[in-house]
Amino acid sequence: AANATPTPSSPPPDVVRCAYLELVVTDLKRSRDFYVDVLGLVVTEEDESAIYLRSLEEFIHHNLVLRQGPVAAAAAFSYRVRSPEELDRAEAFYAELGCRVERRKEGFVRGVGDSVRVEDPLGFPYEFFYQVEHVERLAWRYDLYTPGAIVRLDHFNQVTPDVPRAVKYMSDLGFRTTEDIQDEAGTVFAAWMRRKPTVHDTAMTGGDGPRLHHIAFNTHEKHNIIAICDKLGALRLSDAIERGPGRHGVSNAFYLYLRDPDGHRVEIYSQDYYTGDPDNPVVTWDVHDNQRRDWWGSPVVPSWYTEASPVLDLDGNPQPLVTRTEEREMDVTIGADGFSYTRKGEDELPSWKQGEYKLGHQL
Amino acid sequence: AANATPTPSSPPPDVVRCAYLELVVTDLKRSRDFYVDVLGLVVTEEDESAIYLRSLEEFIHHNLVLRQGPVAAAAAFSYRVRSPEELDRAEAFYAELGCRVERRKEGFVRGVGDSVRVEDPLGFPYEFFYQVEHVERLAWRYDLYTPGAIVRLDHFNQVTPDVPRAVKYMSDLGFRTTEDIQDEAGTVFAAWMRRKPTVHDTAMTGGDGPRLHHIAFNTHEKHNIIAICDKLGALRLSDAIERGPGRHGVSNAFYLYLRDPDGHRVEIYSQDYYTGDPDNPVVTWDVHDNQRRDWWGSPVVPSWYTEASPVLDLDGNPQPLVTRTEEREMDVTIGADGFSYTRKGEDELPSWKQGEYKLGHQL
Amino acid sequence: AANATPTPSSPPPDVVRCAYLELVVTDLKRSRDFYVDVLGLVVTEEDESAIYLRSLEEFIHHNLVLRQGPVAAAAAFSYRVRSPEELDRAEAFYAELGCRVERRKEGFVRGVGDSVRVEDPLGFPYEFFYQVEHVERLAWRYDLYTPGAIVRLDHFNQVTPDVPRAVKYMSDLGFRTTEDIQDEAGTVFAAWMRRKPTVHDTAMTGGDGPRLHHIAFNTHEKHNIIAICDKLGALRLSDAIERGPGRHGVSNAFYLYLRDPDGHRVEIYSQDYYTGDPDNPVVTWDVHDNQRRDWWGSPVVPSWYTEASPVLDLDGNPQPLVTRTEEREMDVTIGADGFSYTRKGEDELPSWKQGEYKLGHQL
Amino acid sequence: AANATPTPSSPPPDVVRCAYLELVVTDLKRSRDFYVDVLGLVVTEEDESAIYLRSLEEFIHHNLVLRQGPVAAAAAFSYRVRSPEELDRAEAFYAELGCRVERRKEGFVRGVGDSVRVEDPLGFPYEFFYQVEHVERLAWRYDLYTPGAIVRLDHFNQVTPDVPRAVKYMSDLGFRTTEDIQDEAGTVFAAWMRRKPTVHDTAMTGGDGPRLHHIAFNTHEKHNIIAICDKLGALRLSDAIERGPGRHGVSNAFYLYLRDPDGHRVEIYSQDYYTGDPDNPVVTWDVHDNQRRDWWGSPVVPSWYTEASPVLDLDGNPQPLVTRTEEREMDVTIGADGFSYTRKGEDELPSWKQGEYKLGHQL
Ligand SMILES: [Ca+2]
Ligand SMILES: [Fe+2]
Ligand SMILES: [Fe+2]
Ligand SMILES: [Fe+2]
Ligand SMILES: [Fe+2]
Repeated sequence: AANATPTPSSPPPDVVRCAYLELVVTDLKRSRDFYVDVLGLVVTEEDESAIYLRSLEEFIHHNLVLRQGPVAAAAAFSYRVRSPEELDRAEAFYAELGCRVERRKEGFVRGVGDSVRVEDPLGFPYEFFYQVEHVERLAWRYDLYTPGAIVRLDHFNQVTPDVPRAVKYMSDLGFRTTEDIQDEAGTVFAAWMRRKPTVHDTAMTGGDGPRLHHIAFNTHEKHNIIAICDKLGALRLSDAIERGPGRHGVSNAFYLYLRDPDGHRVEIYSQDYYTGDPDNPVVTWDVHDNQRRDWWGSPVVPSWYTEASPVLDLDGNPQPLVTRTEEREMDVTIGADGFSYTRKGEDELPSWKQGEYKLGHQL
Repeated sequence: AANATPTPSSPPPDVVRCAYLELVVTDLKRSRDFYVDVLGLVVTEEDESAIYLRSLEEFIHHNLVLRQGPVAAAAAFSYRVRSPEELDRAEAFYAELGCRVERRKEGFVRGVGDSVRVEDPLGFPYEFFYQVEHVERLAWRYDLYTPGAIVRLDHFNQVTPDVPRAVKYMSDLGFRTTEDIQDEAGTVFAAWMRRKPTVHDTAMTGGDGPRLHHIAFNTHEKHNIIAICDKLGALRLSDAIERGPGRHGVSNAFYLYLRDPDGHRVEIYSQDYYTGDPDNPVVTWDVHDNQRRDWWGSPVVPSWYTEASPVLDLDGNPQPLVTRTEEREMDVTIGADGFSYTRKGEDELPSWKQGEYKLGHQL
Repeated sequence: AANATPTPSSPPPDVVRCAYLELVVTDLKRSRDFYVDVLGLVVTEEDESAIYLRSLEEFIHHNLVLRQGPVAAAAAFSYRVRSPEELDRAEAFYAELGCRVERRKEGFVRGVGDSVRVEDPLGFPYEFFYQVEHVERLAWRYDLYTPGAIVRLDHFNQVTPDVPRAVKYMSDLGFRTTEDIQDEAGTVFAAWMRRKPTVHDTAMTGGDGPRLHHIAFNTHEKHNIIAICDKLGALRLSDAIERGPGRHGVSNAFYLYLRDPDGHRVEIYSQDYYTGDPDNPVVTWDVHDNQRRDWWGSPVVPSWYTEASPVLDLDGNPQPLVTRTEEREMDVTIGADGFSYTRKGEDELPSWKQGEYKLGHQL
Repeated sequence: AANATPTPSSPPPDVVRCAYLELVVTDLKRSRDFYVDVLGLVVTEEDESAIYLRSLEEFIHHNLVLRQGPVAAAAAFSYRVRSPEELDRAEAFYAELGCRVERRKEGFVRGVGDSVRVEDPLGFPYEFFYQVEHVERLAWRYDLYTPGAIVRLDHFNQVTPDVPRAVKYMSDLGFRTTEDIQDEAGTVFAAWMRRKPTVHDTAMTGGDGPRLHHIAFNTHEKHNIIAICDKLGALRLSDAIERGPGRHGVSNAFYLYLRDPDGHRVEIYSQDYYTGDPDNPVVTWDVHDNQRRDWWGSPVVPSWYTEASPVLDLDGNPQPLVTRTEEREMDVTIGADGFSYTRKGEDELPSWKQGEYKLGHQL
């Protein structure tokens, strides 16, 4: 396509995995209540302006940085690379793409050393680092586990207007597509891409962007996710539950979407599958399959499609949004009669499955 | 109240538990596919016109009879009593209530002996029996278990217009209330009543009745219920999932509602609490508490409120419906602005929690 | 038999369920660490000499009293009765049995009112009460749940030399047998007896007695029991795990046996079956079936057979032990070659299943 | 060390993961009953002499080949490499090590193409391949899941006399150590090594070798492993359970060891942790820590230490065993008094934890 990002001649940095997200929150205390007291993430360190959190099986300094700021936004999507030398590659790779690049030997946040931050071709603040402080892997510390224990960071999910363009760029960066959602005409609505051998390190979701759709953490088992819901109910915080729990079609994982006090979306996710073989089969889902996003056919709430967090440029200012020009998944799953449909040529959905959350009914 | 059922001078039969439901289905083969192949209920015996099914921990002949018939309906709500002599009490009790009573020494269905069937004061076909064929309790037969293994019948749920009237009659029958839903004015929207020491053997749900709202079976754990959803997804039968899975506020159980091929509603239910003490505390929920029916605040789909199965009289004809004259739960949980609300004096619900399934939005 | 307890002409008290155990511990602080900090039981109240604990779904004052004392022992097996009047029946029933009976209007422990304590025909300190302080049922307080959350008291288990004699007496007291272990000659090694419709409120285990074999609490799911083991490992307290986790043959429950700081045995137990029908089938296990006590055939450790806690008389002195004269289960499950056997006429067990915990090998 | 394998100048093949095991069984029908009917592995294809089995999330032709033969043995430990070209590297790498190497363009078993098999420096039959037939990934086919559903191949475990020698060679092959067991003197008793980012693709267990210690498959959750035990109990096949279920110290996974009809050991394994970072911390366990192999301190049965399967050379003949000359883990965990110990300087273990399965008691 005309607007495709060019493939740099420089090799991309060897990315190991998504490592942490830096999130600007407007009320650090309230965010701490949510991430520490409710979700049970572990505080590695904190001060008046920031909290560094990790999951129970993590051995690097943090998987999430909460930083107090004026506007709720994502400040960095940070990936770990395989060696210190990969940072030079990252610099060259993005320089060739014409992106703004900033390198700091001392790192941008605590616990992390030499780092490269860029405003990537899609407008996202991407970071790459190798040096990081090791901390205790708490995997065996069952005395610290809660019923909803979060054990790993799993992935990011980004909103971007042109999914094929994003996939082209991320493929150049060395990511592989594992699953996507398309229609018959080949319009791509979303794509899941990975470095580590899970379904994804990040996903590209079609929509006005750049925005952060969500960050996702793992639990070991499904009951852990249910326990989070139960606890939110007990705390009378059930409004934080936006969608799910349910079983994803895409990824086959068990999931739950929460909204934090700033509206940042957090997914709790469990048990997708191994994707590490070079010829791992790509799964393409029909956008009209109502089991693609929820295997049980539960309607998706409109907010899940429409709401997302701004992302910041390297100066800390929100990136302007580019509008998606292709069809939107929420729209195409509503038929002329205001109903989505499951399977071509078959009967209409029962009333409890109609629409994406009865959206057609709201018009 | 003027229309209250009188308290018979005869003592009620000593009911042990809800034991089985007789269900008329319009396509026995399709119903068998659902209850046996999908849900994994065990066939005790069957012929061309009826199938007798039981759960894995049951030792009596059946918990569910599917009988081929012209109109999908519930033909009998059957309770086991403590001894053969209790049937005489049942006859006297209902005779005194002016109900139609029929006794058959040979039973109304296979596997069951001497039985009393009545058209009760609410219009429901109630049955009482003691004699029953014992069959193998398959509790230890883990070679027969499926991922969604159903182990017990838990309860019935009945739709009836006047809940306090129903509670009065059922209390006379020896049932105790464990939980109910009310508003500030004392309007009762639903009540849960038990003989065995669980939250209920049956519930009375306010609405046009008499109708069968649902029958509920137990699984051991929550993942068993999730497995049923996953299997329905794999079979492309996810339309059968009407509501849930979720955590009930009332009863504290983990739940799922399905609709069978005739639209009969089946709940899968797990882990409520012990209620056997004589002074077991009754829990009254505010109808405006949006966590009462789903502890996570998930909206209830309108079909769950409005749809239910006809019940038959002792001649096999559908009972006419009596309209509920009091306020309806679905209606009162929608505010003037079309939104339900969670807690008085607090902020409006987020968009994904508004309405009972966005019902206000549909007007 | 010659030594059978007579059947009183007075009717027995109507027992609802096992309600609490009073346990004397020698170091209240260490016991608190175990029951509160490790197991997560909830403190209803405490002072310097006693701690009153309950499970998460309980609404009465306590299920366990830990009382500081000089000798680790069980001071009371306490049952709740259906009404205050049942206490008079208890007095008369035990008086007729020639037992020492003591009644206290103010109760023997905090939170409980009018109570009858007896030294029963088997030498156990049994208590009966109706009046009790209600406290918050924490069932919905998921913010308080731990990964190994204990939700109910399930049963006691008592060691007594003559099991048929114990069964006769307990049947007179209104208990029903649900399962037992016998040999071909009819020797009874253990029996499970219930009032509430689970497999038991107490079990009678053959051995030198009277002694407390264990107290058992429920969790909702199997992973909760595993979580307790994992936490004990993390705290380097794995020595507290005596046997299991495993699946019982008898009762079909998932189980774990712990030893508290005084050596009192605590079982964690999950998911037996409904036994409330009057004709509930009794399951008799062959003592030579190596799956009877562990469905997976895991050998039973000798300590589980031989060790148990003393019980106190009403003056607080330990009851003397009466020796079992019949064969002992541990002995008869070891063959002439020092091996136990699984099934008659079949091959010898593999090395990893031989003996009851290789006991034959130790001789 | 004098006998260390030399480091080849040729680069090793880029191994993606352990892919399948070829197992010779003496009664194909009995083995099929075990792996297909009991464990639920999926038959990709079969004939009279061999069965090709896969796990539910696998997309390559098989994870296990059962081949009828005269002597129960392991015929190939097969790894997938990243591209067809890696096979040339494998040939060169092993040629330089002086190993017997055989390459077959058509593969050694069905479903697999161009392959290299070697008799490696430790005497094991290792295979490398890239070309493989793709089959349906059944991850979403929940209609096929059983309660104990096996979803992936996780790892091999090999017995070899000199663990540091094995680690040196495997490191040259590109594997990384994630955990090991040592004593104070630096004797290494076992090491876990990985290519894919889990705790291992294979482990090296000190003992007379070369022998296959076990093959391990994954389940999603812990209850799946319990379900396998329950089913074995129901089928009266509980003798197949050798050790566990339990929680490993090493790897932190939940585990179960079974013995197949030929005595081949199969582990069921769930939920270890991510190890993909280049600086993933290596965990070294003290051989005297009785929670190292079972986090709950359950004694290891002697058969687990002493029994293992022969491996075949490329002509199909069993490899002769080389005796371990260093101390053996089973021996050093038994003290002078016949007891193992948990932690230095602390009290003796309780009777139920003593010895490795009371081994000291058997002398
Ligand atoms: Ca064990
Ligand atoms: Fe996600
Ligand atoms: Fe229900
Ligand atoms: Fe017990
Ligand atoms: Fe293993």
